[in-house]
Amino acid sequence: MRDYIKKDPWNIIEEGFDPALNRISESIFSIGNGKMGQRANFEEKYSGSSLRGSYVAGVYYPDKTRVGWWKNGYPEYFAKVLNATNWIGINVAIDGEELDLATAKVSAFTRVLNMREGLLQRQFVATLPSGKQVQVRSTRFTSIVDADNGVIRYEVTPLNFSGKIRFTPLIDLNVFNQDSNYDEQFWTEVSRAAGNGSAVITGETKKTQFHVATAFAIELALAGEKQAINAEVVTQDKFVANVVEVNATQDQTATLFKYAAVISSLYSDKAAIQSDAEKSAAAAMSKGFDTLLKEHSDAWIQKWAECDITIEGDVAAQQAIRFNILQMNQTYTGEDERLNIGPKGFTGEKYGGVTYWDTEAYCLPFYLKTADPKVARQLLVYRYKHLQKAIENAAKLGFKDGAALYPMVTINGEECHNEWEITFEEIHRNGAMSFAIYNYINHTGDTGYLAEYGLEVLIAISRFWRQRVQWSDRRNGYIMLGVTGPNEYENNVNNNWYTNLLAQWTLNYTRESLAQVQASNPARYAEIVQKTNFGAKEDELAAWSDIAAKIVLPVDQQTGVFIQHDGFMDKDLQPMSAIPKGEYPIHKNWSWDRILRSCYIKQADVLQGIYTFEANYDKETLRKNFDFYEPLTVHESSLSPCIHSILASSLGYEDLAYKFYLRTARLDLDDYNHDTDDGLHITSMAGTWMSVVEGFGGVRVQQGQLRLAPALPKQWQGYSFRITFRGALVKVAVTPNAVILENESDTALNVHVYGAEKNLPARQILSVAR
Amino acid sequence: MRDYIKKDPWNIIEEGFDPALNRISESIFSIGNGKMGQRANFEEKYSGSSLRGSYVAGVYYPDKTRVGWWKNGYPEYFAKVLNATNWIGINVAIDGEELDLATAKVSAFTRVLNMREGLLQRQFVATLPSGKQVQVRSTRFTSIVDADNGVIRYEVTPLNFSGKIRFTPLIDLNVFNQDSNYDEQFWTEVSRAAGNGSAVITGETKKTQFHVATAFAIELALAGEKQAINAEVVTQDKFVANVVEVNATQDQTATLFKYAAVISSLYSDKAAIQSDAEKSAAAAMSKGFDTLLKEHSDAWIQKWAECDITIEGDVAAQQAIRFNILQMNQTYTGEDERLNIGPKGFTGEKYGGVTYWDTEAYCLPFYLKTADPKVARQLLVYRYKHLQKAIENAAKLGFKDGAALYPMVTINGEECHNEWEITFEEIHRNGAMSFAIYNYINHTGDTGYLAEYGLEVLIAISRFWRQRVQWSDRRNGYIMLGVTGPNEYENNVNNNWYTNLLAQWTLNYTRESLAQVQASNPARYAEIVQKTNFGAKEDELAAWSDIAAKIVLPVDQQTGVFIQHDGFMDKDLQPMSAIPKGEYPIHKNWSWDRILRSCYIKQADVLQGIYTFEANYDKETLRKNFDFYEPLTVHESSLSPCIHSILASSLGYEDLAYKFYLRTARLDLDDYNHDTDDGLHITSMAGTWMSVVEGFGGVRVQQGQLRLAPALPKQWQGYSFRITFRGALVKVAVTPNAVILENESDTALNVHVYGAEKNLPARQILSVAR
Repeated sequence: MRDYIKKDPWNIIEEGFDPALNRISESIFSIGNGKMGQRANFEEKYSGSSLRGSYVAGVYYPDKTRVGWWKNGYPEYFAKVLNATNWIGINVAIDGEELDLATAKVSAFTRVLNMREGLLQRQFVATLPSGKQVQVRSTRFTSIVDADNGVIRYEVTPLNFSGKIRFTPLIDLNVFNQDSNYDEQFWTEVSRAAGNGSAVITGETKKTQFHVATAFAIELALAGEKQAINAEVVTQDKFVANVVEVNATQDQTATLFKYAAVISSLYSDKAAIQSDAEKSAAAAMSKGFDTLLKEHSDAWIQKWAECDITIEGDVAAQQAIRFNILQMNQTYTGEDERLNIGPKGFTGEKYGGVTYWDTEAYCLPFYLKTADPKVARQLLVYRYKHLQKAIENAAKLGFKDGAALYPMVTINGEECHNEWEITFEEIHRNGAMSFAIYNYINHTGDTGYLAEYGLEVLIAISRFWRQRVQWSDRRNGYIMLGVTGPNEYENNVNNNWYTNLLAQWTLNYTRESLAQVQASNPARYAEIVQKTNFGAKEDELAAWSDIAAKIVLPVDQQTGVFIQHDGFMDKDLQPMSAIPKGEYPIHKNWSWDRILRSCYIKQADVLQGIYTFEANYDKETLRKNFDFYEPLTVHESSLSPCIHSILASSLGYEDLAYKFYLRTARLDLDDYNHDTDDGLHITSMAGTWMSVVEGFGGVRVQQGQLRLAPALPKQWQGYSFRITFRGALVKVAVTPNAVILENESDTALNVHVYGAEKNLPARQILSVAR
Repeated sequence: MRDYIKKDPWNIIEEGFDPALNRISESIFSIGNGKMGQRANFEEKYSGSSLRGSYVAGVYYPDKTRVGWWKNGYPEYFAKVLNATNWIGINVAIDGEELDLATAKVSAFTRVLNMREGLLQRQFVATLPSGKQVQVRSTRFTSIVDADNGVIRYEVTPLNFSGKIRFTPLIDLNVFNQDSNYDEQFWTEVSRAAGNGSAVITGETKKTQFHVATAFAIELALAGEKQAINAEVVTQDKFVANVVEVNATQDQTATLFKYAAVISSLYSDKAAIQSDAEKSAAAAMSKGFDTLLKEHSDAWIQKWAECDITIEGDVAAQQAIRFNILQMNQTYTGEDERLNIGPKGFTGEKYGGVTYWDTEAYCLPFYLKTADPKVARQLLVYRYKHLQKAIENAAKLGFKDGAALYPMVTINGEECHNEWEITFEEIHRNGAMSFAIYNYINHTGDTGYLAEYGLEVLIAISRFWRQRVQWSDRRNGYIMLGVTGPNEYENNVNNNWYTNLLAQWTLNYTRESLAQVQASNPARYAEIVQKTNFGAKEDELAAWSDIAAKIVLPVDQQTGVFIQHDGFMDKDLQPMSAIPKGEYPIHKNWSWDRILRSCYIKQADVLQGIYTFEANYDKETLRKNFDFYEPLTVHESSLSPCIHSILASSLGYEDLAYKFYLRTARLDLDDYNHDTDDGLHITSMAGTWMSVVEGFGGVRVQQGQLRLAPALPKQWQGYSFRITFRGALVKVAVTPNAVILENESDTALNVHVYGAEKNLPARQILSVAR
């Protein structure tokens, strides 16, 4: 763990420049707007250690699969998020001497991520080898109003001399992915052009043939006075730039404004894309920096009004939770159903493909409660649009008749992952897809979603479960062999309780949903029956009902807990505390076989099931299972502590709940796992948010009703959060003595607080004693 | 399957040249002498499809491991057998026109592997594009008398013209391994030299820094008359050659003799290696081709006298069994304890590393019964010398106090394999190591081996088993979690019956062996106790005894069979015949998860255990288990049918026994699995031999006694085999009415034939009615 980020409620602050921390800061200070984003690389040339990364949503490369030993059924490729055109570059020379923080003496360095306004700001004084001293200030943002635009204001002030300041704003397509399997470059150049004060380049991805056009327009000012542009134009292979110079006297500030546009062929015809980018950059320039900044900043302030969490008495916690909310919103906005949430967002390129079950299990709850329902809905539609691919994926594995297996990792619906124990066996993800449909409808009340999209997905997933289980005379029930549960520290197990439970639940929910659509929308029902050939070959309803009734979900007689999987109770059940110091994390210290045969659980497994269907279990059952499984859990997934924090809160284990909350809260800000340099853990940020709102706040939606049971961690003086629920926006403030509910919307609603139903009229405040 | 090899009892014959079959033939006609060998590539240039491969025993490259997803504990590299210097090359030009069978018209082509004499012979008539016609004859062998030497006689006869025949004998170090992980070349050149009539080149392997010097000396003759050598000398990077020319009139034969020497730094000082190779080539030339050939051929004839099998009435079977015996002997001779038996021998480079448990389980029985005991002993000493590495290997996986885990694949004692389910979990191999010690002593009576080498290995392996099992209160026994049995179509299973059985047996055998050495050699016993720190920390004997007594080996109540592993009986137990046509081999048609959760067994697993300890089980137990497990077995390992053939013979299932025998007998000759082009299945050849001798012949060694119970497959008129046993050499001939035993040695012995004990005096013949 590191602790170099200054604590501040609204800003992430780095003071002083330490090249050893640069890659970490590049991740932490990343900005994005859901359509594009990039690491907090410097604009000017930097010859020190850096991972230059700019990313464009939905643009990927199918990188040929690389394995040690091929297993039949592996996908042909792993889709990689592409490191794309570098549009931020502005090389700077002072009287011909290049500005490079790796060679200059740097002082008064600060890098700030202004979270309230979504701005990346940096300033420093650099003393060049010649002794010339300049002050530099830069402000950069990727607009959330004009999402094709990125804007930079770059200011240079000579401090101890007068001289020539040369700016070289550039666009560079000569980029490589850090995690290319075969050291290939994924981009080719389609075309480029540059003029006086503008430039553009269009790249094409190999194989997938996405086009991305990147353009800029520039303005130059001296001491606040706009200067005419008289640029030297540079165009080279995969590179375009302008070179502009200005004579600045001592203390006079030279400013370059760079208005960039990044447009991909997801949004523009290839024939027009280059001129679209040029036009967009020019339009941004006509709006001007101040206007762009104000629009962007206002939009961020508005966003915070819907999703902010305040924490009193703990600035580190306050900073961290806002950081997580910011990054979630920078990564995904719900504008485009083709997009999803990558494990690193726009902050790095590790783990390649974009979509894991993290989306449904962790991110969906966040967006459901903090944004317009259409944002969460887009995440569901994304999967609906991939249904055919999921059916094809299942067919490759021997399933038939429209059974669907959603991929473990995907970007376009096709499976990318290539570890058999995950790819083929971690099939509980299919249950996450169906539960997400329920979760969305339960939260939003949008029952129409079932008929429009949801039911087809549910039928296909239920068909998968039907074919995946088998009847066992010996067990007198349906069994499911050879799976990997959420606990990836065991592979190829039989009757994983969580997976069986999700299968059972899906089969039941699909039957209910069929009935509901049949009743509410018979025409659409008939259409779906025909489209899916439902029930044509056999009585599918009866088969599903039989499986749901008879699937094995064993309880251990000795301990009374649900058995994680067949044989789990045979293990040497020693608590995690028995692992000698220096031997954890075990995934770094134990060989894989030892981990597998140990009792240690990577992340919630049985407890993930109880969390998902909490209303079905009494507290005693929860307690028994928590007390049994949590001590065996090593939490070596960033997705583990949040579920445990929520359940601990539910059980009144306040210290434990807070301990788990702390494990994720500042995961990236404090570089807990020594891997922030690769990018941020975007999806686990949603988990931290859940720890606060579902955990401490005790927020649940059950039978379409909002329930709260807030606790106040003793480390805090108070906290507040907001929830979007069925048209209402509720601010919940928790103080030592009261829960204060403020309905900030025009929609009245009922809320259950500590089990008591309360009416909360529009625009009213309600206080409930604690 | 293909059927282009002509049937002949002593020769492998290809008639007519089909380029599409060339790579297959290159494998089948491979020659070797235990120290070096190579594929049956053409001497002259060939621009068609070919895998040029020459291999030198014990010379390897540690190729950096390549995986999709790294698992903690994986080895850093996979040791690759190296494609080494090409010493066979003799380019030929006729009046300046190059001879190349890819461009010439070829007729009267035959390629022959003369098995009785160990010779590769080829002849053909080539019509060059110019219309000139030559007849070519070549004879090549790698001497089993002077194992550093390879010798070629290459004859060219102009058939329709008189002209210049130019020979370019060459040595080429510019070779690549087909299966390099990172497309590297593994060789660098140390030095080279060439003179009139001779040349030499020394290569060094990267990383391992083996040196290999390859030299040749040449003779030239015209119409049988030796010619003076007047060579043009060529030396280039990694290449040396002589160019010699002779004028031949029509029907006059020009002959080039190439005497090569290949010496590795395993056998020669690096400082002297180049001159050693030059001297060796020169010495071979002074002996002369005819003498070298005669010595080599005589040695082969002598070898056959000890290990030949005859089969009457089935020339295809006769040819096949001799082919297998030949290849086993070409691959391994027991001269050097540092060498072992690679899965492809000297016939290809697939599967890289050299040593698998195949050696102990399949090859050892072959060498035990067909060669001097010192040959089999060397295979055991090889593992003894790797004991320290096996202890280090186990330590990497968390074991301690001198516990050893022998590697799954190795060349130098270090683990090379990188599939967790195999590398870390297929630990029954450790049992194969200990059983091999028993097997060797039981067969040879060399009880001294225990004290000298065996006991240390047994102690280390027993320590591994002790740490690998765990006590289970619930099972009231010791259990072993997370293993892969011989059936690699299941991974990460608990309580694999075969593995538990071998662990139990090893613990018992180690205890007996300790007692035996203590009694027979107390000084050495004391030394071993001290060296291994035996019993210093705890009463190891008592612990082993307790585990052996209480390890779980469950019998299924319903069927009475041994349970392959926990949960196996939950599977959908459909016979292999239920797999739809077109879906097998399942490893090519089913995704890996489907194979894993199916009941289908790749190769003998429970049955491998019963085979290994057959004397411990009555026929009824064998029958019950065979009838249960065999129908579930898909035999998708080349090592599977032989064990089933032997057990079927034992049960009197004659048709089945013969069916299984057929599945391996001509595996490579008929290219059954369409992969012979990569090289031969050397280790499974031993299995075919076992099918005949242990299967049809019913040969067993029990309590140090030789037992026979021969059956005669109805497809044969008779057969005979030889067995080396405790100083005696017995020929067993089986006719429709009798078993005729001939003691070809000066050592008398007792033999049990069909259960009746017989005395077989030296040099006597005994006939027993069938």
